[in-house]
Amino acid sequence: MNDNKISRREMLRNSALAGIGISLLGGKAVASETSDATLENLIAGSVPKAKTMIGVPFKRHETVRIAMIGTGLRGRSVLGEFVAVPGVRITALCDIVQEKADKAKAIVEKVGMPAPAVYVKGDRGYEELLKRDDIDLVYIATPWEWHVPQSLAALNAGKHVSVEVPAAYTLKELWQLVDTSELTRKHMMMMENCCYDYDELLILNMVRAGVLGEIVHGEGAYNHDLREILFETKDEGLWRRAHHTQRDSNLYPTHGLGPVANYMNINRGDKFDHMVAMSSGSLGLQEYRKEKLAADDPRQKEVYKCGDYNTNLIKTAKGRTILVQHNVSTPRPYDRINLVQGTKGIFRDYPSRIYIEKDKGGHQWQPIDAYKAKYEHQLWREVGEQARKLGGHGGMDYLMCWRLVQCMREGFVPDMDVYDAAAWSAPGPLSEISVAKGSMPIKFPDFTRGKWSEKRTSIP
Amino acid sequence: MNDNKISRREMLRNSALAGIGISLLGGKAVASETSDATLENLIAGSVPKAKTMIGVPFKRHETVRIAMIGTGLRGRSVLGEFVAVPGVRITALCDIVQEKADKAKAIVEKVGMPAPAVYVKGDRGYEELLKRDDIDLVYIATPWEWHVPQSLAALNAGKHVSVEVPAAYTLKELWQLVDTSELTRKHMMMMENCCYDYDELLILNMVRAGVLGEIVHGEGAYNHDLREILFETKDEGLWRRAHHTQRDSNLYPTHGLGPVANYMNINRGDKFDHMVAMSSGSLGLQEYRKEKLAADDPRQKEVYKCGDYNTNLIKTAKGRTILVQHNVSTPRPYDRINLVQGTKGIFRDYPSRIYIEKDKGGHQWQPIDAYKAKYEHQLWREVGEQARKLGGHGGMDYLMCWRLVQCMREGFVPDMDVYDAAAWSAPGPLSEISVAKGSMPIKFPDFTRGKWSEKRTSIP
Repeated sequence: MNDNKISRREMLRNSALAGIGISLLGGKAVASETSDATLENLIAGSVPKAKTMIGVPFKRHETVRIAMIGTGLRGRSVLGEFVAVPGVRITALCDIVQEKADKAKAIVEKVGMPAPAVYVKGDRGYEELLKRDDIDLVYIATPWEWHVPQSLAALNAGKHVSVEVPAAYTLKELWQLVDTSELTRKHMMMMENCCYDYDELLILNMVRAGVLGEIVHGEGAYNHDLREILFETKDEGLWRRAHHTQRDSNLYPTHGLGPVANYMNINRGDKFDHMVAMSSGSLGLQEYRKEKLAADDPRQKEVYKCGDYNTNLIKTAKGRTILVQHNVSTPRPYDRINLVQGTKGIFRDYPSRIYIEKDKGGHQWQPIDAYKAKYEHQLWREVGEQARKLGGHGGMDYLMCWRLVQCMREGFVPDMDVYDAAAWSAPGPLSEISVAKGSMPIKFPDFTRGKWSEKRTSIP
Repeated sequence: MNDNKISRREMLRNSALAGIGISLLGGKAVASETSDATLENLIAGSVPKAKTMIGVPFKRHETVRIAMIGTGLRGRSVLGEFVAVPGVRITALCDIVQEKADKAKAIVEKVGMPAPAVYVKGDRGYEELLKRDDIDLVYIATPWEWHVPQSLAALNAGKHVSVEVPAAYTLKELWQLVDTSELTRKHMMMMENCCYDYDELLILNMVRAGVLGEIVHGEGAYNHDLREILFETKDEGLWRRAHHTQRDSNLYPTHGLGPVANYMNINRGDKFDHMVAMSSGSLGLQEYRKEKLAADDPRQKEVYKCGDYNTNLIKTAKGRTILVQHNVSTPRPYDRINLVQGTKGIFRDYPSRIYIEKDKGGHQWQPIDAYKAKYEHQLWREVGEQARKLGGHGGMDYLMCWRLVQCMREGFVPDMDVYDAAAWSAPGPLSEISVAKGSMPIKFPDFTRGKWSEKRTSIP
């Protein structure tokens, strides 16, 4: 299946050539990373500065001491899950808004835990927090532009890091995360909660049991109408819309791609080899603000670079294809797609439906219920009831938090490491580059530095 | 929305560059059309040899005299529709198999029409048929490899042509069809029946009425498990599987793309500008034959070039994006996708569901029933009952035949002309070239020679 791989050198020729062509695209701004020499280095990566973090177990922690940077809506929601996980202590909290930090502190106190230290000292308050010696894990739930500086600071302060998605949105920063995790010997993990959703784990079990046959194609997306949230004058509206003015790319690839990467054992026997991206016109946010905002609202003057639909095609080293799509700016029902096609059957989510040829022919979708008894994932069997009670995103948030804490307490290898964080986030910058170059194919960096072909498990 | 267009010259640089890279792809065979000089000429097109056929009406025919080349399963099915259309006479039939021609003849006689002349004289029998002077329209339903020679012969014999899909699968032959239609002043039409299906025409009306807002993205596919048919020792099994041994491309793009092209007024105000294609490994047919055929069956030795999933991304001149997908070789339910996204709502088929924000919010799909009273297409109102009675593909086949005959009797401009046949078929060869070049973007030829921007209607 490997006959369509493209060498890095060809990709560089592609980008070199397209570089010439950019002027023909109307001279639109192009990310600095698309300069050919820079791109060559970013795809090649640098010499490793330390040993790999692949397969490195946590040391056992009897209690997992967690500090949080960012106590907004998402942070407090995940905090509510963490405090319900046995063996957790919340030692410190940081935000730039006192009220949000206080709300988070109250969540901790409400469950009878000792009050955490609270840091509200402007943009750099987190640096004070990181000086503490009672932190095993730093959980980061801040605006995207803060993920990298805060993750690097936490790793360099000797803490493990779990960050909200995406981990970063430039190739340079993704390599910084890899290099720093290796240098500091601390795990840099992305909190890709969708990998722990019920259907995703059920299908992961079925794929591993061979029920779908050999996997040939997958699809994932973040198609979620966020227009109202993007224009709010609080919470995500304060920072997320700005990214649409800065980049024409797949701003949020990991919810769709993470689960498919698990089905395909990416970084564990296969890898993302190269990708192309195409972006539609940007009409959704303009039309929305015209109807909803005052004519003299300064946001009427914003220019939205990001196309409404950004669609990516990824080829893996084993010849599989993956479709990844992003759309948050037009009216539509929610859809992560979550499709996986094998030689014996297919699954597609939203709503969940399955077709396994040997079980029931006729080319008709079937409900997944008949497979739950045999293939429900052990994590859902173990803590599903508690997860559903807390209910963060239907329970997947609790499973993710519970499992991360379990790995740290038992001394396991984490389900998702810095190489997964980098590979799953990479379609962000790679789609920006491909779109800027007229949908040229762009090679993925191999963040594992050749170790992608070693078989190992992710979520057990 | 036009900021991401790529000039033909850049595409040629792309192909030149990728040409170099091909050797790095393992020296796999590349279609002759990918040689850079050839591709440049094929994208540029030749000087027109005659005036355009855009907007050229039929002369009025009181009776439409139809001859058929190919009386296999598909031919006889459509024949059953044609004989039910008022004003039709079937004057001649041609096949290479006497039994099939006789079955077709019986269909004509059964409805009390005069017996058609029957030509069964080997591969070239159709040349005899074309010498007749009582033929207004030649309908061609033969294996794909015969579409072009038979269409060209029919045009040159002074007959209008309607051919099954795709019209052709090389750029060279698509241009031959355009040039010959223009030279002979005869219409060369593709029988894209899906454009006449109930949902497609309902949505076309809604798009034109602005109910979905400005259209930003569309998706179409031919995802249809044909493995059993492909391995039959009769009918399509005799020729269709062979194409999977010859080309790694989107073998059958028009059922998904035609309806989306109508939503977007392609060749009538917008055009396909460029596209990329990615192809998965080819596992489905190999695994199927291993289970179903004898170990010594010669078909066990066939090598299938065509990837199971071939996915295309098309950018239009107005900045819209279109996803087109082909998969006929893995177990899965049928799906043409048929998705169209506008700034006010979205429609997705299989099963049909719609979300129009102003009618009912909440980000939930709704059934389309509420829109039928107002937006059901006039063709379905007019002849839908008769169409459903005959039932060819749920009625769309009869509508297509009825409408074609109506255009010829009334002296209308045809709904679909040679430029649509060429543009909708082009992703076949363009996907083959893009895949061979590692998913490089490839420019569409402008078969309309600049007339694409003139507003005109397709199906009224």
